[in-house]
Amino acid sequence: MINGKSFLIVGLGLLGGSIAMGLKKHNHKVYAIDTDKNAISYALENGIIDEGSTETDAELIGKADVIISGLYPSLIVSWVAENQKHFKSGALVTDVTGVKGAVVDKIQGILRPDCEFIGAHPMAGKEVSGVQHADPAIFLPANLIVTPTKKNTARAVEFIYEIGRQLGFCNICQLSVEEHDKMIGYLSQLTHVIAVSLMNANDSRDLVQYTGDSFRDLTRIAKINENLWTELFLLNKENLVQQIDAFVAEISDFRDALEREDIGKMKQKFITSTQRRKYFDK
Amino acid sequence: MINGKSFLIVGLGLLGGSIAMGLKKHNHKVYAIDTDKNAISYALENGIIDEGSTETDAELIGKADVIISGLYPSLIVSWVAENQKHFKSGALVTDVTGVKGAVVDKIQGILRPDCEFIGAHPMAGKEVSGVQHADPAIFLPANLIVTPTKKNTARAVEFIYEIGRQLGFCNICQLSVEEHDKMIGYLSQLTHVIAVSLMNANDSRDLVQYTGDSFRDLTRIAKINENLWTELFLLNKENLVQQIDAFVAEISDFRDALEREDIGKMKQKFITSTQRRKYFDK
Repeated sequence: MINGKSFLIVGLGLLGGSIAMGLKKHNHKVYAIDTDKNAISYALENGIIDEGSTETDAELIGKADVIISGLYPSLIVSWVAENQKHFKSGALVTDVTGVKGAVVDKIQGILRPDCEFIGAHPMAGKEVSGVQHADPAIFLPANLIVTPTKKNTARAVEFIYEIGRQLGFCNICQLSVEEHDKMIGYLSQLTHVIAVSLMNANDSRDLVQYTGDSFRDLTRIAKINENLWTELFLLNKENLVQQIDAFVAEISDFRDALEREDIGKMKQKFITSTQRRKYFDK
Repeated sequence: MINGKSFLIVGLGLLGGSIAMGLKKHNHKVYAIDTDKNAISYALENGIIDEGSTETDAELIGKADVIISGLYPSLIVSWVAENQKHFKSGALVTDVTGVKGAVVDKIQGILRPDCEFIGAHPMAGKEVSGVQHADPAIFLPANLIVTPTKKNTARAVEFIYEIGRQLGFCNICQLSVEEHDKMIGYLSQLTHVIAVSLMNANDSRDLVQYTGDSFRDLTRIAKINENLWTELFLLNKENLVQQIDAFVAEISDFRDALEREDIGKMKQKFITSTQRRKYFDK
């Protein structure tokens, strides 16, 4: 199904660039649009894309069978609204956005009836951004989550699975938009809020020489792109606030057990966390 | 100074066993006492120690120039009180306890005047326990923190540094007992409380297939020895409660900024955490 198709990446950053590289490995035609001249020229010089433009290039857009948005969540809906007039009839449109509720319904609501949008979330990244750091190896240990709705065809779902398999994701699965955003609020967004807050709770730069692996592991993701993550958090505000509240209730319960020296309760919490964490061993 | 000295390990678990193996590599005589028959016979069969006993062996204790306690914090003071009558005159006594306030002063207060106790904390470990998992390689990326008091001699401090260098610690440094316990409350104990609480905040076993590296990194230390860590937390209760409170205040501040969509404040927190975390890159 995927062979012979041409791909347009809109927003050629770390994820968009890594997808482009992975697709090129399978000899697909890959085009890209990005307002950053350096991103496009870097990608052309390094064989990451076949053609690129820093402008809304109607011809380039119209050549693509598949359009993959690597744009920030705040830009994707308006980009589709403004540029769908150039889309090839039958084009499949997908994205990489980390929150689905604010994107999927809106795009499906405005998209031309002869095209199809299906949401996807590659759970992969790095602590650096930009096509210059792109590397399709980031997909190998990662999950690709597809979030189809009633409006999607089985053919579109299967197509995304094919792309995911070619890019090398170790696991591809489906969730509803609502399930996805709830899950991501806990597993990804809450962990980032915790890492940032742990880092900010003390100015601990003088403690560097005493630092063990535990603290480094818990704060690795405290290096964070402030523009992207502010958008992602706001788009999933309700879920994330709920998750923070549940976590704060749990840590406060532990704090109170410690303060009143409730040894039984402390041990029970350690035993529970140990049992649960074992399920997550690779 | 260290050559020709004999060492007694009291409590032959993961840390005691790893120290024994490291010392044997440098051809020191190493004895051990542990109430667990399996630990002693395993260590003898595998050449980890030269002699061992499951009893309070007065002769074995009296032969040692250096006594290293690998006991739980709750046992170490009473063990010294009961057995110091067997100590060789001039013996140096040290330990591996993760909290110093509850141990150092007490032991120095009761110890025979012809012996010397100096506190030490190897910031190393594994998520498993027992001499069967001992491995001196755990010291190579780790810090050894020595916590001398006014009662300690420069000679004892230098001796611990020599042991630390032979065991291969990448960094050896000194802190006061108070500084140590405050630092450990933040860098180690708070991180464990967070990992346990994150794991316990949701029964998320059905989310395993969606889990990325961030969540795994933040919860790795949620597998935890409930007996040891309950003791360690209670011994450092005041510092740890203070650290939890500071962290909860910080995460609550973030939550409120998110709820009222205070984009400027959210971004500022991300920028601060990113800057601070960079100091901790290895």
